Amino acid sequence: MSYVRRQVERMSGYTPGEQPKVAGLIKLNTNENPYPPSPKALEALRGAIDGKLRLYPDPTSSGLRAKLGKKYGFDAEQIIIGNGGDDILNLCVRAFCGECEKLAYFWPSYSLYPVLANIQGATQVELPLNENFQIEVHPPLLEKLAGVKLVFITQPNAPSGVWLQRVELQRVIEETQGVVVIDEAYVDFASENCLDLVNEYDNVIIARTFSKAFSFAGMRVGWAVGPKELITALDKVKDSYNVSRLSQWGAEAALDDWDYFQQNIKRICATRAQTTDALAKLGFFVYPSQTNFIFAKPPAPLTAKQWFDGLRGKNILVRWWDTNRIRDFARVSIGTEEEMNKFLSATKEICEEAKR
Amino acid sequence: MSYVRRQVERMSGYTPGEQPKVAGLIKLNTNENPYPPSPKALEALRGAIDGKLRLYPDPTSSGLRAKLGKKYGFDAEQIIIGNGGDDILNLCVRAFCGECEKLAYFWPSYSLYPVLANIQGATQVELPLNENFQIEVHPPLLEKLAGVKLVFITQPNAPSGVWLQRVELQRVIEETQGVVVIDEAYVDFASENCLDLVNEYDNVIIARTFSKAFSFAGMRVGWAVGPKELITALDKVKDSYNVSRLSQWGAEAALDDWDYFQQNIKRICATRAQTTDALAKLGFFVYPSQTNFIFAKPPAPLTAKQWFDGLRGKNILVRWWDTNRIRDFARVSIGTEEEMNKFLSATKEICEEAKR
Repeated sequence: MSYVRRQVERMSGYTPGEQPKVAGLIKLNTNENPYPPSPKALEALRGAIDGKLRLYPDPTSSGLRAKLGKKYGFDAEQIIIGNGGDDILNLCVRAFCGECEKLAYFWPSYSLYPVLANIQGATQVELPLNENFQIEVHPPLLEKLAGVKLVFITQPNAPSGVWLQRVELQRVIEETQGVVVIDEAYVDFASENCLDLVNEYDNVIIARTFSKAFSFAGMRVGWAVGPKELITALDKVKDSYNVSRLSQWGAEAALDDWDYFQQNIKRICATRAQTTDALAKLGFFVYPSQTNFIFAKPPAPLTAKQWFDGLRGKNILVRWWDTNRIRDFARVSIGTEEEMNKFLSATKEICEEAKR
Repeated sequence: MSYVRRQVERMSGYTPGEQPKVAGLIKLNTNENPYPPSPKALEALRGAIDGKLRLYPDPTSSGLRAKLGKKYGFDAEQIIIGNGGDDILNLCVRAFCGECEKLAYFWPSYSLYPVLANIQGATQVELPLNENFQIEVHPPLLEKLAGVKLVFITQPNAPSGVWLQRVELQRVIEETQGVVVIDEAYVDFASENCLDLVNEYDNVIIARTFSKAFSFAGMRVGWAVGPKELITALDKVKDSYNVSRLSQWGAEAALDDWDYFQQNIKRICATRAQTTDALAKLGFFVYPSQTNFIFAKPPAPLTAKQWFDGLRGKNILVRWWDTNRIRDFARVSIGTEEEMNKFLSATKEICEEAKR
């Protein structure tokens, strides 16, 4: 007899992108921001390192919630702070979808969703995106949505990077009897967002993170906004002190330096455009990205796996999955201009070698 | 129809001790360490505040696990790091006890256990401690243990502060078909510990924290050690990046300053002895504490509630629960010598007022 719950015994955990400790490595595999966090935020953090760390943090991160509420136009009571965006996603599963109840997610998207469903013992419902990685609401999809308690939608989508059309996304919300979580982890790099849907529907939660656009992946701060009733449920299931004092403090300080945040985003979006153009010129197919990464398919005879391996041999790490529907692509995080130039030169070489 | 799972809708969340922002308050209500973290650890933290915070943390906190393993004599693979001790306890529920399965805990003890059971939808089994807050294995207890998947034991016990007799504790382990988690949150202030039981049994996990004896409640770092098979299951259900870069770094640095840690503990234990003696002289009944708090019952006609309220009126916060079996006591965290002198003077005054 095993001591472990059967579904946990059988499942594999989530596999995060590698974090190798190799000197000189160009790391374009986990969608981290290539630029440091706001210098003002770092300064504020240094100032917060004192004897007060002996005290528990504010259990509800009220200062940060107030700031986010003011910035984005919501009541602080509509906001919850998590230990990274993943904490938020996990809390949503725990509050809204029980064992053997249906948890749906579009596919391909963030591979954590099925893992969270497994841990909860929920029934997984995979909703296929169409050939352009867009939502398409049609009778078979509606059938799958019946009785679903929770739906995850990554907007913009990952790993494709595309913006999902609002009309179809709203149809999903309207056709779902359960809660729809719009995971906007990458939305700061997009030209739109879905925050307004929180006011329009009583079953929509938007999840956000400080990991990408705020350059704070190492600090673990995510948040969500939604109807007060749903946020209250999330509050009940979260760990009492789920966000450290420094993480709360650092996120507040990062929010205060809004200009830096905007400049950082602008720079990454510019590099994204340049990289996309350059790859297109090399014959790659690149989806129009609204994120800080691009999803690209190399020109024949080069395969995505060969491209991935070739880059790795040149000390450049991108992400490739040996998974249906996305096997022909690799996902490349946008690095600094310098890093992307090196990436492009390496890619060019690999393309030429493949043609020989 | 509600969007929220029925058991979450019906339950109340855990109520953490108050964290009021009142100047000059003597805060003896949440068992925080009255002394700051190691100055060397704070210095190390300041040095770690740089651009690298843009990167995700090590997902498995391998540096910290290696250090803990070396310090306490375990393989790093037997150790998992959590976002505070509460994260560890929650992961144990998720890995070992499913919806409608039995989760047992001794009572009175940490009031988070029933909340974690509620969130999971597990069936709560309350195992009463005897009148001395000790485990007593007898037929009715054995009956309750039948079929239990997970048992939580706080050692030393909270809120009583007493050390649970090993013989009885081991009988519980032997009579339980499921996993036994020994929650040693306060054990650094005790004269013994149960780490050796990890080697003796295949169903024992020990949970520890940096919040109390390491003065790092604000940093959120807990850990657990157990058989590799059980730790592997916990690894699967944890959030991928559950501990921030700074929290990992700070905990490592705190471990490196072992002398400071020992001095800190010694000082608190001395103050604990003095406070216990002084309260006994005032006619209080105080359980022999092996923790950084004491659990005391005031002499008639003073009630625990009156004592609690009286202290509050004098800007001293302790913890009192309006709960069966513990209503006649208040729990007092051990503060600095100066704080405890003020606490004792205030208590003396309250006793005298009550006699009038």
